[in-house]
Amino acid sequence: MQEQGMHCVVVGGTAAGLSAAAKLRRLKPDARITVYERSGYVSYGACGLPYFVADWIKDAEDLISLDAQNLKDQRGITALTQHSVLAIDRAKQRLRVRNDRSGEIFEEGYDKLVLATGAKAIVPPLPGIDGPSVYPLKTVEDGIALKAAASEGKSAVILGAGMIGLEVAEALAERGMQVHLVEMQERLLPFYEERFGEEASAVLKEAGVHLHLGKAMDAVLREEARLVGVRLAGGETLEASLLVLAVGVLPETELAKEAGLALGFRGGILVDKQQRTSDPNIFAAGDCALSFHRMQEEAVHLPLGTHANKQGRVAGAVLGGEADHFAGVLGSQAIKLFDRFFAATGLSLQQALDQGHEAFASCIQKGERASYYPGGVSSTLCLIVEKKTGRILGAQGSGSEAVAGRINALAIAIVKAMCVEELRQMDLVYTPSLAPVYDPILIAAAKAEKEV
Amino acid sequence: MQEQGMHCVVVGGTAAGLSAAAKLRRLKPDARITVYERSGYVSYGACGLPYFVADWIKDAEDLISLDAQNLKDQRGITALTQHSVLAIDRAKQRLRVRNDRSGEIFEEGYDKLVLATGAKAIVPPLPGIDGPSVYPLKTVEDGIALKAAASEGKSAVILGAGMIGLEVAEALAERGMQVHLVEMQERLLPFYEERFGEEASAVLKEAGVHLHLGKAMDAVLREEARLVGVRLAGGETLEASLLVLAVGVLPETELAKEAGLALGFRGGILVDKQQRTSDPNIFAAGDCALSFHRMQEEAVHLPLGTHANKQGRVAGAVLGGEADHFAGVLGSQAIKLFDRFFAATGLSLQQALDQGHEAFASCIQKGERASYYPGGVSSTLCLIVEKKTGRILGAQGSGSEAVAGRINALAIAIVKAMCVEELRQMDLVYTPSLAPVYDPILIAAAKAEKEV
Repeated sequence: MQEQGMHCVVVGGTAAGLSAAAKLRRLKPDARITVYERSGYVSYGACGLPYFVADWIKDAEDLISLDAQNLKDQRGITALTQHSVLAIDRAKQRLRVRNDRSGEIFEEGYDKLVLATGAKAIVPPLPGIDGPSVYPLKTVEDGIALKAAASEGKSAVILGAGMIGLEVAEALAERGMQVHLVEMQERLLPFYEERFGEEASAVLKEAGVHLHLGKAMDAVLREEARLVGVRLAGGETLEASLLVLAVGVLPETELAKEAGLALGFRGGILVDKQQRTSDPNIFAAGDCALSFHRMQEEAVHLPLGTHANKQGRVAGAVLGGEADHFAGVLGSQAIKLFDRFFAATGLSLQQALDQGHEAFASCIQKGERASYYPGGVSSTLCLIVEKKTGRILGAQGSGSEAVAGRINALAIAIVKAMCVEELRQMDLVYTPSLAPVYDPILIAAAKAEKEV
Repeated sequence: MQEQGMHCVVVGGTAAGLSAAAKLRRLKPDARITVYERSGYVSYGACGLPYFVADWIKDAEDLISLDAQNLKDQRGITALTQHSVLAIDRAKQRLRVRNDRSGEIFEEGYDKLVLATGAKAIVPPLPGIDGPSVYPLKTVEDGIALKAAASEGKSAVILGAGMIGLEVAEALAERGMQVHLVEMQERLLPFYEERFGEEASAVLKEAGVHLHLGKAMDAVLREEARLVGVRLAGGETLEASLLVLAVGVLPETELAKEAGLALGFRGGILVDKQQRTSDPNIFAAGDCALSFHRMQEEAVHLPLGTHANKQGRVAGAVLGGEADHFAGVLGSQAIKLFDRFFAATGLSLQQALDQGHEAFASCIQKGERASYYPGGVSSTLCLIVEKKTGRILGAQGSGSEAVAGRINALAIAIVKAMCVEELRQMDLVYTPSLAPVYDPILIAAAKAEKEV
């Protein structure tokens, strides 16, 4: 077997990188596998960081499934933390690597390479932004630093109301901090229909979060080095002892770019369905790579842990000689905001229109349980529907945790090109504690059917 | 228009009957609509009766959406409670009706008739069963009587561990009663894979319910008229002050049978996709009728409120001149047992084998949230899969309320003939509070894919 004893190097030791390494190990017990990770931790659940900051997860160790020693002992995978890969020589199949603890620089050959370098937080070029008390939330170190700062501070500004910004707003508010959330856009959850943005605003306000929507930030205010607040465009100042940067991320692809790999949208690495880059010896997976969107039918950048895990696993499977592929993303997403959950899948109305679909959004509000059953939450559900055919193109919902299941059901309906007429006729489970006699999905489908 | 001012009579005033009446009213403002209901209540949520007995719903009125007066005033529907329809003269399109309050018997003509006579509780022919303190749970009156008896008694025997039996077991245990649940079959939830029966047994035992599985009941024990307990086959006696009859139901179709309408399985009324019986002027809907099962491809008897509502609505729509049909049932079902929920859809493994499928069940256990996120419940999920193709034929699950969404997603997958390979590749929503990074559905699909 030609790949016997091959050396596979993985750059990046979290979701995508370790999924690739673990899958390859299962398929090729004799492969040599080396993982370089820039931070001090491998194999951590980055999506749990906001909940660690909230202190619902007490110990950062709880976010980590396997440390470097376990990876070595249990999986035979060499994981080197605080190691930065500086350059790829594709012709010689060699890497330049720096041990960031010792400063030592060395070279390392590879047979196959997996780039799982993730994404980097965007840092807006504002006066005062360089300096202490400005926190992104990407790594365990970021989480530890933010949690420590939050435990000492009284008020925080969060710049950016994307997923991370919203989750951190909840986390810091739950800790009792005064939280200012500053967002350039006029509304929350811009991917969703407007009513969800209003719901999210209401939830945050109810929880005491101060919303500053449609506001740009002008400067970080410091007394000496110490951060004391921020100034918004227009002159308003907000007092704070810390600033969380959550204006978004970009694929971390300097290394790939320097090496001349083909890049696409936002500089993300272009890959085929096997996660192979333009160099057949190099694979890429996770937030550094682009993903094929099944409804948009193009490569998009959707940096989510669930895609990273799956793509890494596909890379590892293909490297291990298994026929596998990544079928693509659908834009499925969910977020918890205090006691309300929001989830979406498929195309937004704007995306559908941009794609040339004659489409409309049809929305309902409905209790999640039989009206007489205690404790039911009101849910909102919108279907994005193709006018001519009634085909479901997207779905967005809010409510209790049950929203996840509704949106997942609709994700399957979307992939299978189901129309609202067929959806309305579905036999969904019913018992008073779990659903009204017509599930919100059926109500939404019946309403949309009339609008087709 | 030929149906202008037509007189439509509906026999039965709950889910199916009132859905038919309400839909017809919306389509035909000038139709005359008369509903005869044998009990003293119309338009009540029968599925909520166990929760009324548990006292989570305090007032029986809360189960009722519209009383007869509201129906008259708001909908122009004449609903007569405590009226029994005694006979149908199909040739003359006339009914014989008895006012059960006054005893008066009268005749009434109809242009169109909807039979929504529901189901009747099976009463096993046991010594002592006739007499006080034996309760079925079909009507509001049953619920009021059982709740009153429960508030005075200390211990109860429930005969039959179907949906109603299980729900009443929870309700009476929650009231602090000593509860004996007697079931002929050796296990609970016989439709489900065996592990779910074990889970259900564990939940009930943990809650203090005494299970008597694989046991027949021999006699109801009375001192004078007063019920004091039951005797099981083998001689064991159980002390109790009341007995709940929950051994199942049969279609209530005496009237249809006497009128010579075509009946099928278990005596249920045979209907076409428009809910039309063998007499084109007579429709039937709900628990008295059979339903087309989309996977079994035959008429089955599945007496559930969700089907009753939909079938009634279809009958009303067709009577009102609208093109509608009932697409059929999939066997979707759910039950709450204390803090655990069970749900299923499609074929059970036994049904699949009986249908001639070469099929297998593939099961997983998995946390419902990211492992590091607090409060996650362990869920069980089984897929029933066709061996040759990987097509999903059925699904069964347990866990938190989230089980409903998972089973609904799989119901859509089943209807759209999805295979496990395609399911494994689905983009389902992920956030640590709602799901692990691989949703249980994806884990189950990946496992089943290896077994195809």
